[in-house]
Amino acid sequence: MKLNALRRISSFFVILIIVLFTISSINFAQSNARTELKIPDIAGYKTLKCDFHMHTVFSDGDVWPTVRVEEAWREGLDAIAITDHIEVQPHKKDIPTQHNRSYEIAKPKAEELGIILIKGVEITKSMPPGHFNAIFIEDANALDSDDWREAIKAANEQGTFVIWNHPGWEAQAPNGAKWWDEHTELYEKGWFKGIEIVNWYSYYPTVHQWALEKNLTMLGNSDVHPPTNLAFNFCNGGHRPMTFVFAEDKSEAAIKEALLKKRTAVYFNELLIGEEKFLKPIVEQAIEILNPKVSVKGKGRAYIQVYNKSDLIFNLVANGNLAELSIPSEITFYPGKTSILQIKSKSTDVSGKRSLLLPYSIKNLLVAPDTGLPIDLAIEVDFVTSEN
Amino acid sequence: MKLNALRRISSFFVILIIVLFTISSINFAQSNARTELKIPDIAGYKTLKCDFHMHTVFSDGDVWPTVRVEEAWREGLDAIAITDHIEVQPHKKDIPTQHNRSYEIAKPKAEELGIILIKGVEITKSMPPGHFNAIFIEDANALDSDDWREAIKAANEQGTFVIWNHPGWEAQAPNGAKWWDEHTELYEKGWFKGIEIVNWYSYYPTVHQWALEKNLTMLGNSDVHPPTNLAFNFCNGGHRPMTFVFAEDKSEAAIKEALLKKRTAVYFNELLIGEEKFLKPIVEQAIEILNPKVSVKGKGRAYIQVYNKSDLIFNLVANGNLAELSIPSEITFYPGKTSILQIKSKSTDVSGKRSLLLPYSIKNLLVAPDTGLPIDLAIEVDFVTSEN
Amino acid sequence: MKLNALRRISSFFVILIIVLFTISSINFAQSNARTELKIPDIAGYKTLKCDFHMHTVFSDGDVWPTVRVEEAWREGLDAIAITDHIEVQPHKKDIPTQHNRSYEIAKPKAEELGIILIKGVEITKSMPPGHFNAIFIEDANALDSDDWREAIKAANEQGTFVIWNHPGWEAQAPNGAKWWDEHTELYEKGWFKGIEIVNWYSYYPTVHQWALEKNLTMLGNSDVHPPTNLAFNFCNGGHRPMTFVFAEDKSEAAIKEALLKKRTAVYFNELLIGEEKFLKPIVEQAIEILNPKVSVKGKGRAYIQVYNKSDLIFNLVANGNLAELSIPSEITFYPGKTSILQIKSKSTDVSGKRSLLLPYSIKNLLVAPDTGLPIDLAIEVDFVTSEN
Amino acid sequence: MKLNALRRISSFFVILIIVLFTISSINFAQSNARTELKIPDIAGYKTLKCDFHMHTVFSDGDVWPTVRVEEAWREGLDAIAITDHIEVQPHKKDIPTQHNRSYEIAKPKAEELGIILIKGVEITKSMPPGHFNAIFIEDANALDSDDWREAIKAANEQGTFVIWNHPGWEAQAPNGAKWWDEHTELYEKGWFKGIEIVNWYSYYPTVHQWALEKNLTMLGNSDVHPPTNLAFNFCNGGHRPMTFVFAEDKSEAAIKEALLKKRTAVYFNELLIGEEKFLKPIVEQAIEILNPKVSVKGKGRAYIQVYNKSDLIFNLVANGNLAELSIPSEITFYPGKTSILQIKSKSTDVSGKRSLLLPYSIKNLLVAPDTGLPIDLAIEVDFVTSEN
Repeated sequence: MKLNALRRISSFFVILIIVLFTISSINFAQSNARTELKIPDIAGYKTLKCDFHMHTVFSDGDVWPTVRVEEAWREGLDAIAITDHIEVQPHKKDIPTQHNRSYEIAKPKAEELGIILIKGVEITKSMPPGHFNAIFIEDANALDSDDWREAIKAANEQGTFVIWNHPGWEAQAPNGAKWWDEHTELYEKGWFKGIEIVNWYSYYPTVHQWALEKNLTMLGNSDVHPPTNLAFNFCNGGHRPMTFVFAEDKSEAAIKEALLKKRTAVYFNELLIGEEKFLKPIVEQAIEILNPKVSVKGKGRAYIQVYNKSDLIFNLVANGNLAELSIPSEITFYPGKTSILQIKSKSTDVSGKRSLLLPYSIKNLLVAPDTGLPIDLAIEVDFVTSEN
Repeated sequence: MKLNALRRISSFFVILIIVLFTISSINFAQSNARTELKIPDIAGYKTLKCDFHMHTVFSDGDVWPTVRVEEAWREGLDAIAITDHIEVQPHKKDIPTQHNRSYEIAKPKAEELGIILIKGVEITKSMPPGHFNAIFIEDANALDSDDWREAIKAANEQGTFVIWNHPGWEAQAPNGAKWWDEHTELYEKGWFKGIEIVNWYSYYPTVHQWALEKNLTMLGNSDVHPPTNLAFNFCNGGHRPMTFVFAEDKSEAAIKEALLKKRTAVYFNELLIGEEKFLKPIVEQAIEILNPKVSVKGKGRAYIQVYNKSDLIFNLVANGNLAELSIPSEITFYPGKTSILQIKSKSTDVSGKRSLLLPYSIKNLLVAPDTGLPIDLAIEVDFVTSEN
Repeated sequence: MKLNALRRISSFFVILIIVLFTISSINFAQSNARTELKIPDIAGYKTLKCDFHMHTVFSDGDVWPTVRVEEAWREGLDAIAITDHIEVQPHKKDIPTQHNRSYEIAKPKAEELGIILIKGVEITKSMPPGHFNAIFIEDANALDSDDWREAIKAANEQGTFVIWNHPGWEAQAPNGAKWWDEHTELYEKGWFKGIEIVNWYSYYPTVHQWALEKNLTMLGNSDVHPPTNLAFNFCNGGHRPMTFVFAEDKSEAAIKEALLKKRTAVYFNELLIGEEKFLKPIVEQAIEILNPKVSVKGKGRAYIQVYNKSDLIFNLVANGNLAELSIPSEITFYPGKTSILQIKSKSTDVSGKRSLLLPYSIKNLLVAPDTGLPIDLAIEVDFVTSEN
Repeated sequence: MKLNALRRISSFFVILIIVLFTISSINFAQSNARTELKIPDIAGYKTLKCDFHMHTVFSDGDVWPTVRVEEAWREGLDAIAITDHIEVQPHKKDIPTQHNRSYEIAKPKAEELGIILIKGVEITKSMPPGHFNAIFIEDANALDSDDWREAIKAANEQGTFVIWNHPGWEAQAPNGAKWWDEHTELYEKGWFKGIEIVNWYSYYPTVHQWALEKNLTMLGNSDVHPPTNLAFNFCNGGHRPMTFVFAEDKSEAAIKEALLKKRTAVYFNELLIGEEKFLKPIVEQAIEILNPKVSVKGKGRAYIQVYNKSDLIFNLVANGNLAELSIPSEITFYPGKTSILQIKSKSTDVSGKRSLLLPYSIKNLLVAPDTGLPIDLAIEVDFVTSEN
């Protein structure tokens, strides 16, 4: 009996050892989890996080197509397009060309993980007119033409959405992004409707300006070739470039509709780039003034607490002055944190309650090149004269 | 003139914007840098960090072969072997079988980055006898045999180093690692000299015991299939499993010689597993007692400061008592940090200087299953009677 | 003219330099921000994060009272009590005793930051009966008595809430927490209604059991003496021990009412300790099954995605089996992340839709010592026979 | 018997629970450890990390004096001076003035931890001449004079080292740092020999220039009032401003000698500021070119690997061109990492081995305002003509 009990104890020790090593493993193994990115939905639309440009071993990328789905899931994306080059196949010796294969291989994994996988391809021509992504394609092979006009025409005949990729790419635009006659031709035919203002590690202010003037849909894509972890510093809060699509629901059709209607914003490093009508409601949903009604005594101060519920950072600069109050010239609302905005009465002559708008501009939310999003913070201040 | 100057100012703004975006990019882009792993060399040998088991798209892995080199360089490894399965080729439809290709493709990148790339392959049989890696091979094709005996024999005929992989792998050893007659046959023929005591997320204490009893070289390998970043939590200080090889120089030949002479240790999570003759000098090089001579008054205390220069963590437990001093029952020496070990005099009767050995065991440095490395910390204490 | 322009350029450089240094400063300066702790409210109650035990220079703590308020604000707390010892005043030589001062000094800062500051004090006697916190006091001086009975009686006469502190503190309970006759006397008189089951770095399972059996309010407090940052590892996601109070609103009165009604839970490291009626709704609010309806083909698998919106971690272990499905024996839902729970059909005989409850226990949410919170995850599985 | 065994098992469970909670505690508790800062010593001198300006509750700081020692030890400092204001005593109501007390209280802790504690005080006058630290004082009371001349004279009579603090402090220098006649008087009398070019969150380029022109010892100090953790972002790799002192040994006397001989450098955020004769050898000790001899084929490339052993970051910009090679215009050597500097042959006409100096400037190591440290990286390139 005693022996049996001891055996049990001893087997318990073994289990204990296993438990402890399991615990130990948990610390160093990467958790197979998705980090949800907290970006508010805006009135009537879901904010879908998308990346429409990336490569696999089927062109000049370094990963098997399923890896692109796994990465997208972990990084909190909703939809991706794998867009292997038609014309660039450096691994052809080992992987015979099949333009539709990366999509076919990735599709089951995307279904299992709930990632919307859009079929795409990159038409890869010298400049002009350069590289173009066609997404929502049916068959990539139809786009395999030496003539760029034919290729892009074929893409349009499949009802795809065509994007001019990285117009500011140094290798094809050594003096900065340039709009050639060929682009005018394509533009006038309506053969491309989207344009990358952000690609990989670069944002192109010139192209941003073109998009605004020519009513092109703005896109920001990763164009990633290696595993994303070798390219972006996730440990440090980094993320790949992405396109926020404001879609009626989480579906491929809704994404296409939104792209055609230009309902996008581009998220790059700390920058969020887009039209004011999209950026403003995002900010309004993201931040909450916890104590909008405060009182100040005499020339005293009060603390306004502002909670940023989103994963975006907001770097504000004052966009004017107030007669009644001193306000900080700069303030940052960090993601997931509450910050203090200190106000200070300028004079003892003011008294009573006043509704005030604190005039700011969020300098890392760009409504145009070098132009921050204007935003007013509404508070009510009760000015108490010091005698009271 | 004024206009020119304004143009210059304006072009300056453009440069400024570029500079600022560059700065911004630096934060989020992954730096293309190698994190050196601080593990001391030991007398006469360099401590090389190696991983002899990993896969690419040429078998059932998810990455192009060059990625394995890039990952190894970034993670601070000195040498790797890519060991694609001979028998498992799930991508065969897209990538026709060529057993030597992953090595050929990775080799130029390895040379450029200074990574020692050892040619290897995994012989993949059902249990018994299971999976075996052959490294330092000349031609993988010669090992492509349905008969496991033939395959392993062919590997040995090429003068390779053969390793029994993951003997405790649940899929092939549902009741724990089991030594079959087939293994006795191979062992007696000298056809495998190494054994994995660590593979992927698991450490096998039973196999560790076998290695000690049968004089097999201990290995710890990643067996990684996805990009390493999807598997290991580098953000958190994690690392892939690896084998430390104590080699006469940093060369392929020296690694082979060291493997044959069993000069290895296995690094897994916070565990370092190996023979005392290797672990002890590592600890002696890693830690430095900054103030080995202290004095205590009466029943007072003193702080011994211990600096751990390495990237290893050392979890110590007291391994006995001292008549003169109370010492902490547990203490951890964190990597890159100095810790305080508090001693306290037990009595006022002791006086004068005494050389003492503080008896400890480092419980995460395993010289045998569940057996920590004994280590004595040498200090000199001057016991001052309180009257002074 | 040119000169003027150059001057402007040159002054621009100066501004640029300032801008760059400001940017540089932002990186290393600690942001003066509050990290909101995401813990769901539960039906009818707000979940307030509280710490009712801490010290300042006015007893044996190391910080000025305002620091306690600043720390609480940054760490996401809603309410604190500073509870300096009446009897322990090691700094008396420099800071003459004034038991009410730490509250008076901290109060304006608390008002400015919106932290509820509860007036408290620690009655500090040898065991039995040990140390007791009285919070919601009016005047600390009335409790300054050498007789423990008198001191605790005086505390109760002020209508305070009295807590038996750290019953398992080794210095006063070397053989583990012990309930003395003196505690029976106090308990029967109703002179203490709360008890610390967590204090500083320790959780006392025995005391947890007492609280359940004797209907005492469970508390977990920091009892911090140094700056909190020297004691808790916030860099690593750590937090001080705290008491979650389920209060009708965010006010001092509501906290008192909740404490008297025993509506609390204790948050310590990864543990959340409390009654099932509180822990269960927290989990129900915290986690969301993103795709509760799935289908499996034959003996195939499906992925259930579970999003944990809170800052709590949930370590689940299976609490039974299902006839139809294999479920993971262990799974962790990480804070802010979506995890995959893989189900696998056990047989091809089942077909059609079934509502199933996956039986789990959350082992780090303790409803009693060593007893995890049972939780069922409700899903609907459509079993598709493979022929279809 | 059976019962006994069960009891043992059961007690084992209890131990297990304790073990597990202990493990759990380790994760969230702050480790009481010192982070060594890896800054190389330079020929003949030890590089001591010092901060000569900080406050406690004895003036307008927020912590008990021992906290300053504990913080310094954890942050890797070698020496500090606590410099409470003589004239600013906002806590006087609770802590009666005793100018020497903060030193006396902190001293035993400093001895125990091996921190050099220098006795100091801040003479706090309106501008001109502003605030001055006197360190290595004997008795602070002698400096308590309403007349700034008398106070500074008294400081000098005690053989102290006097520092003009924060000349660019906005509250006293709203239009930037200004050198008044009073400073000329003090300077000519030799009554102050050091000057802060960095204080708290600011670096003053103007003051940096003064120090160079007037042969003043450059200092960078924290002037910290709250706990350092509330002010500096250590989680993110941040550090307090500090002065590196190049001293003959680790002693108070050696620090004083070094300050008098102007052997200092100032470490602020990513900036290291000092004379070339100190910064250059630091860089030479910190970085190692791992493969200084490379070969390039035709117009090919090679990778130079540069290991930065220190905790400093080095941001290099090219400082010229080479006829033979293209070199990167910018490159960063991250702390503890190895970076790749890619060189590319410019022509196929060059052949044979050449010793080359790659001309760079480290822009965050300032030898004068806005002037980086020039540094040449010596390599040997073997130009191989492509035919070979």
